[in-house]
Amino acid sequence: MRMYDCILAKKMGRELNRDEIEYIINGFTDGTIPDYQMSAFLMAVCLKGMTKEETLALTMAMAKSGDMLDLSPIAGNNADNHSTGGVGDKTTLIVGPIVAALGVPVAKMSGRGLGHTGGTIDKLESFPGFVTELSEQDFFSQVNRVKFAVMAQTANLAPADKKIYALRDVTATVDSIPLIASSIMSKKLAAGADVIVLDVKAGSGAFMKTQEDAILLAKTMVEIGNGAGRKTCAVVTDMSQPLGYNVGNILEVKEAIKALQGEGSKDLMDASFTLAAKMLTGAGRAESFKEAYTLAQGAVADGSAFEKFCEFIRAQGGDDSYAKDTGKFTRAEMEVEVRAVREGYVRRMQTEEIGMVSLLLGAGRQTKESIVDLSAGICMHVKSGDYVAAGDVLATLHTNRPFGVEEAHKRMLGAVEIGEEPLEKTEHVLAVIHSDGQGQEAGRI
Amino acid sequence: MRMYDCILAKKMGRELNRDEIEYIINGFTDGTIPDYQMSAFLMAVCLKGMTKEETLALTMAMAKSGDMLDLSPIAGNNADNHSTGGVGDKTTLIVGPIVAALGVPVAKMSGRGLGHTGGTIDKLESFPGFVTELSEQDFFSQVNRVKFAVMAQTANLAPADKKIYALRDVTATVDSIPLIASSIMSKKLAAGADVIVLDVKAGSGAFMKTQEDAILLAKTMVEIGNGAGRKTCAVVTDMSQPLGYNVGNILEVKEAIKALQGEGSKDLMDASFTLAAKMLTGAGRAESFKEAYTLAQGAVADGSAFEKFCEFIRAQGGDDSYAKDTGKFTRAEMEVEVRAVREGYVRRMQTEEIGMVSLLLGAGRQTKESIVDLSAGICMHVKSGDYVAAGDVLATLHTNRPFGVEEAHKRMLGAVEIGEEPLEKTEHVLAVIHSDGQGQEAGRI
Repeated sequence: MRMYDCILAKKMGRELNRDEIEYIINGFTDGTIPDYQMSAFLMAVCLKGMTKEETLALTMAMAKSGDMLDLSPIAGNNADNHSTGGVGDKTTLIVGPIVAALGVPVAKMSGRGLGHTGGTIDKLESFPGFVTELSEQDFFSQVNRVKFAVMAQTANLAPADKKIYALRDVTATVDSIPLIASSIMSKKLAAGADVIVLDVKAGSGAFMKTQEDAILLAKTMVEIGNGAGRKTCAVVTDMSQPLGYNVGNILEVKEAIKALQGEGSKDLMDASFTLAAKMLTGAGRAESFKEAYTLAQGAVADGSAFEKFCEFIRAQGGDDSYAKDTGKFTRAEMEVEVRAVREGYVRRMQTEEIGMVSLLLGAGRQTKESIVDLSAGICMHVKSGDYVAAGDVLATLHTNRPFGVEEAHKRMLGAVEIGEEPLEKTEHVLAVIHSDGQGQEAGRI
Repeated sequence: MRMYDCILAKKMGRELNRDEIEYIINGFTDGTIPDYQMSAFLMAVCLKGMTKEETLALTMAMAKSGDMLDLSPIAGNNADNHSTGGVGDKTTLIVGPIVAALGVPVAKMSGRGLGHTGGTIDKLESFPGFVTELSEQDFFSQVNRVKFAVMAQTANLAPADKKIYALRDVTATVDSIPLIASSIMSKKLAAGADVIVLDVKAGSGAFMKTQEDAILLAKTMVEIGNGAGRKTCAVVTDMSQPLGYNVGNILEVKEAIKALQGEGSKDLMDASFTLAAKMLTGAGRAESFKEAYTLAQGAVADGSAFEKFCEFIRAQGGDDSYAKDTGKFTRAEMEVEVRAVREGYVRRMQTEEIGMVSLLLGAGRQTKESIVDLSAGICMHVKSGDYVAAGDVLATLHTNRPFGVEEAHKRMLGAVEIGEEPLEKTEHVLAVIHSDGQGQEAGRI
């Protein structure tokens, strides 16, 4: 087999078979296929696409390029959720405890974030003493005991994906549904969960700008997951404004704790309960989505989800007194209010720009080496559709960086559009893609 | 400017401007743009194409990446021809002396061949003493004195093309009209001729398998040449069988000498006179194509073209007694006849396969480092449409390699199809693309 022929085949629009795809992925991972051949191949994939079968074979080959976690030591069906990433997305901190409180094990591998805030691992490290470098044995034992554990992603999880992503990032071959889907799903398959619930974001703060593209990506990933023998479904949610109100690590942890205590915003709770319900039905804990949704609401209402969260923090060495008294968390030295310059209704938000402002304030990583400022970030005071008078606070910027505040203020003001007409409020959950690949519009779930 | 944005633009099908194209070519040539970005870009070009303006800018940037030869020391309009390459193509050895004999200077830079036979430089080195490493001054002085000189291509002629071609060769990005056209034309523009006549081959022995593709390539190159201010036209010729009868360096030199002495085959003379006539009219030596064609025929008939050939060989240190007595050339040790196994009419030939047989016999280079066996090759005894009886000789194989002869014999037999029905003979010159970009079918020139 020759890489040349595989590139040519894809360029001509021919379907590659599993052997060819495994040859490409293994050869690129072990370095026998050079970057310049792989990048030509990736461009051909971007422009010619991949069939369902090719995409599944690609994902499987990438998943198998490193360690495949075997979760069989965990009793019962375990469930995992994954978000494609959005501004203010703290759902994992809410969903994990809810599902675990209802008895379904959640064994989570997570990474550090690159972008506007840290990842789940960074957020959890807001708790003094919290440890994420667990041995496999400790991880399994905690999941069996507590039903919830979060472990830092091992270096050898889908190494093919790491290498391919680095190349895509510099060769303008990122925006391809089969390549995005295989990148996400290879890591999920390698991480071993029985039930996978995906949260695909759509809108100005997401990689997928339109609902149509987000649904296409969701369907592709659901097909891969089920093709690989994992019960997989997806939820498409709105990212035309930040999720909830807070953006930034400690600020998001505080908001997640409030949500677990029953005081979450409507969009955040809609997303969290929907994801939790899909995980519960997938794992067989409930018969119907409706039943599962009610169970999830109950776990928040009766305090068991918050209790589970505290137990989980303690199990990994963290100080859960911070959860009980969030005033103990460090605050940023500066708080700058951004006020409306005119009266009107909050219309569209440039959500990606809000993410960039958060990065500017120190909340995220510009490069892998950046140090995240856990206390930095943004508290939004408004949602799309809200009425504001001139002078009302739109957002509070939290930062320890004296320089850049003026720019952050200016850009934040520009990111929130205020108009004369009120905006019709829309559902936060836009669609659900069931594990049989069938989609459902919002409001009909 | 960033290469990432240029790749993205081409991937999205947007037209690049001249600055962007110069940035890409200069950056890749000086090594600041890495192979893996260039190969992704080249794949995007293959699949999204290039406009006329982009292709011209690309060619100019590639031509300017190294030395641009200034032919102004040569008196009068000088003309150059270029063939896209075919099996048995010895036209340059015939066309150069004809045009020079009629007073139009031909200042030729030529390369060594890679493939089924050597290039023009290899063929000329069949003459003992022949020197191709000329100084510019000697080159110009010989062109002014003799009107014909052939010099080995300098290392710094369009280095961007060399580097891009090497990358295309391993990334399945060879078959793109803008990339093929710019590769050929960048070298022609850098070599400096006022008048450029292209011979684009079409058929089983050519890179362009169909007449339509050959015409498209021809038109693209003619547009580039005229866009760059050179008087350029193209001839599309048939490569569904070897040109003339002989394939291999000394064998082709002998056939070229016979042709200059008025004993060339019809297809070879049609090609040679047509190319010569286009060079003569281009340089202003004749008013009409018809007049030029008659002049070219006259130069062969009156012996002046052959005399010019001998003068040219002597001028570059070669022993022209070999031209006057071709029996002096070395012969291969083995001559093996390939005979028809059945009676019938010679139909199609697998011309590329005949080229491969010639390579097997030692006539060409498999890699740049291979040593060409100048005496090896094939003498065809038949042309498509000829009648043969069983046992008639189809071809004689000339080689010094005892091994491989059996395979060569078998493959040669398979390459010449014999059928019951006679084949309608077609014109050798399929079309002419004039310098105004207008094409003309065969027989109407």
